[in-house]
Amino acid sequence: MQTMDTVEKKRERVPLNGVDTPTLFATINAVKGQPELARFKFRAHNRWVKGTHSHTTIGSFHGAGAEHTHASAFEYDADHPAVLVGTDQGPTPVEFVLHALGACLMAGIANVAAARGVTLTEVESRIEGDVDLRGILGITDAVRNGYEKIRVHFRIKGDGPPEKLREVVEQSRSRSAVFDVLTNRVPVEVTVDAG
Amino acid sequence: MQTMDTVEKKRERVPLNGVDTPTLFATINAVKGQPELARFKFRAHNRWVKGTHSHTTIGSFHGAGAEHTHASAFEYDADHPAVLVGTDQGPTPVEFVLHALGACLMAGIANVAAARGVTLTEVESRIEGDVDLRGILGITDAVRNGYEKIRVHFRIKGDGPPEKLREVVEQSRSRSAVFDVLTNRVPVEVTVDAG
Repeated sequence: MQTMDTVEKKRERVPLNGVDTPTLFATINAVKGQPELARFKFRAHNRWVKGTHSHTTIGSFHGAGAEHTHASAFEYDADHPAVLVGTDQGPTPVEFVLHALGACLMAGIANVAAARGVTLTEVESRIEGDVDLRGILGITDAVRNGYEKIRVHFRIKGDGPPEKLREVVEQSRSRSAVFDVLTNRVPVEVTVDAG
Repeated sequence: MQTMDTVEKKRERVPLNGVDTPTLFATINAVKGQPELARFKFRAHNRWVKGTHSHTTIGSFHGAGAEHTHASAFEYDADHPAVLVGTDQGPTPVEFVLHALGACLMAGIANVAAARGVTLTEVESRIEGDVDLRGILGITDAVRNGYEKIRVHFRIKGDGPPEKLREVVEQSRSRSAVFDVLTNRVPVEVTVDAG
């Protein structure tokens, strides 16, 4: 990251905001020298339970040249609420998209702030998406299936001036993986073993 | 849904696969007569904890002309794993995207199968996404920040012939909200209160 490089030369690398900044820069430098370390495969395994209720396990991923397992296998339920003829055993899948977006921007904010020497005290975001369900209900092709628009509103407090804090959010946005896939699309291949 | 309409005329509406098919069709018909009921707003509230660890609450949403709260407020942690300089308090945000995609396609499969009179016995999907982290690490602009490609592989078993089961998956894909936002992009607005 250009900004990180600049900071790197000027600032002593010390952990900040709970970010292990020295290790973060060491990781960036390792990947610069060995780009294949940057190739990751993330995975999830989803199983149908009943009705619109399904259960996902997130256990392992590949990256930095090796297989990794999470500290524990993370497990999540998703469902539709009663008003959408489900049993509300978990949030809807589209709500998990909002969570993913907020969490991705937040992780970036913490890393960028640490790299820039900005101490954060409190950061939160409220994420909201508008959807017209006539799409997924198949009532009209005039509306899309997914969100028409998503809004993310941040409140960020820290030791820098407001403009510097806003720049941290902007840098995170410009490097966010989830923001990228949502705003720039990604090819999705669906294959099926049936019977 | 054209297919649902066709089925609706031919088949008695009975619950199937845990899907309350009569209520599902009643909901579709209600929305046809009153399109404003289909306008939903989903929300998530994400708070920074420490480092790349953040915590999300999913509690309420607006739709069918009213405010709704989930049976309970759902809470999720997200983080980066140690290899990405986090503390692995939860999956990465990009893994939650895979979960959302798998769960969305699965809910659709259950609904479509019920509408078509197909009894499901076992359905699962494995979702995998490829990402080159040189993007988010800011090492090169030659790779994107997010997934380059996502693959979803289904295993589906039920009382229909393989071709019919594959058609159920295909109809779900064609009406999936999360598949839509990932493959067709969505505008995301980020605003900031700083200081």
